[in-house]
Amino acid sequence: MRFPLATRYNDYDTKGHVNNAVFLTYFEMARERAWVERLEGSADFPFILAEATVQYRSEAMIGDPLEIEITTTEVRTKAWVWSYTIRDARDGRVVAEGRTVQVAYDYEKKATIAIPPDIAARLPSL
Amino acid sequence: MRFPLATRYNDYDTKGHVNNAVFLTYFEMARERAWVERLEGSADFPFILAEATVQYRSEAMIGDPLEIEITTTEVRTKAWVWSYTIRDARDGRVVAEGRTVQVAYDYEKKATIAIPPDIAARLPSL
Amino acid sequence: MRFPLATRYNDYDTKGHVNNAVFLTYFEMARERAWVERLEGSADFPFILAEATVQYRSEAMIGDPLEIEITTTEVRTKAWVWSYTIRDARDGRVVAEGRTVQVAYDYEKKATIAIPPDIAARLPSL
Amino acid sequence: MRFPLATRYNDYDTKGHVNNAVFLTYFEMARERAWVERLEGSADFPFILAEATVQYRSEAMIGDPLEIEITTTEVRTKAWVWSYTIRDARDGRVVAEGRTVQVAYDYEKKATIAIPPDIAARLPSL
Repeated sequence: MRFPLATRYNDYDTKGHVNNAVFLTYFEMARERAWVERLEGSADFPFILAEATVQYRSEAMIGDPLEIEITTTEVRTKAWVWSYTIRDARDGRVVAEGRTVQVAYDYEKKATIAIPPDIAARLPSL
Repeated sequence: MRFPLATRYNDYDTKGHVNNAVFLTYFEMARERAWVERLEGSADFPFILAEATVQYRSEAMIGDPLEIEITTTEVRTKAWVWSYTIRDARDGRVVAEGRTVQVAYDYEKKATIAIPPDIAARLPSL
Repeated sequence: MRFPLATRYNDYDTKGHVNNAVFLTYFEMARERAWVERLEGSADFPFILAEATVQYRSEAMIGDPLEIEITTTEVRTKAWVWSYTIRDARDGRVVAEGRTVQVAYDYEKKATIAIPPDIAARLPSL
Repeated sequence: MRFPLATRYNDYDTKGHVNNAVFLTYFEMARERAWVERLEGSADFPFILAEATVQYRSEAMIGDPLEIEITTTEVRTKAWVWSYTIRDARDGRVVAEGRTVQVAYDYEKKATIAIPPDIAARLPSL
């Protein structure tokens, strides 16, 4: 799933490029949209993050139009991996890549759970 | 009540000064600390914001040590006003001033309430 | 000028509604878009903020689709006022209102200046 | 180097715990402080980030006093690795761990460079 990133002026830091921490927010925006539009329809996420990694490939400067792609790259019993690529929308230059590991979670029982079957079935299509 | 502000690198934007929206976060930090240390002891705030104003007086650049002062400037039945001054800690230069109007609120009943008497009694000392 | 707000999951705080400081970021998003699309075409802003005010009217909860309207409400020699209304896009419920005062600024000379004529001419159309 | 983290109310998201992206900001706060107090004395960083990883170990809820430790875990010719551990200051419970890879960078020449000898000499002491 690929879509344009709505950047904000205060995503940029004193050197004029996107602050390193903001990329995790961009990943979160991709997860949120993938979740709502493709997987469940709820804005609340019944999973927790176990790990997140960002590789910074090139600078994203103010005015650069960015797009993000989110893909499911692994599905286990309780956890799955989403991978992300952020590109300059004009020429495909890779700005950042990364991955996050999600674990299905029951917030009421405060326990990890198996991925619900309907979510598991839809995850690979992302 | 006056204390040093713990600024962060990503508070600063592309021009090297604190982003305008971050001042409301600085005000919130002052409210949080005033609330916990002087007024109630809980990190949760039983009030809502009705209004916030910031006047930008001079630039806060990276490395400038800042301090904030929070004062109660008005107490009504259900609402009170806090005023803020942010200064360069070295020379007292005013960086920003502002005020916020708080309304006491019962989050369970989802209704505004009179300021609890013990809070009302302590507010002027701030 | 009116457009949908691209909210983010971490705009919301522990009570599930948009954090008070984020509204100034929403105002900034509106300024940025107005500036780029209607006024100048540059993502860099040759003005400084003198003042910002937000009135919080009702809660914006996670999932509420928001839209923002920015209007020029006053043009002086060196300064102008933009006013903002943020609404729930479904029913027009007002979530927040506010205004910011901008002063035209020459960043090289570090001095306030008269609003450039071409900008002054286009401001009222916003 | 270990110090208390100055958290902020809007670091927390709707579930009451620190938002995942904020941990990279906490790492940045540790880098900034290590850089200024132990390594160079300038708030400007002559390096770029190549990679960042966070492992989320347990929840940091509102009111939990957090502390962060930053350690140099590898020094190469042009790059070095910093590792981070964030703990609950009361009982040492690990909240998050992570690492970032920094590359020495000449912002004028826009090129990676060898780590300056004086920095290289001081890095292992961190």
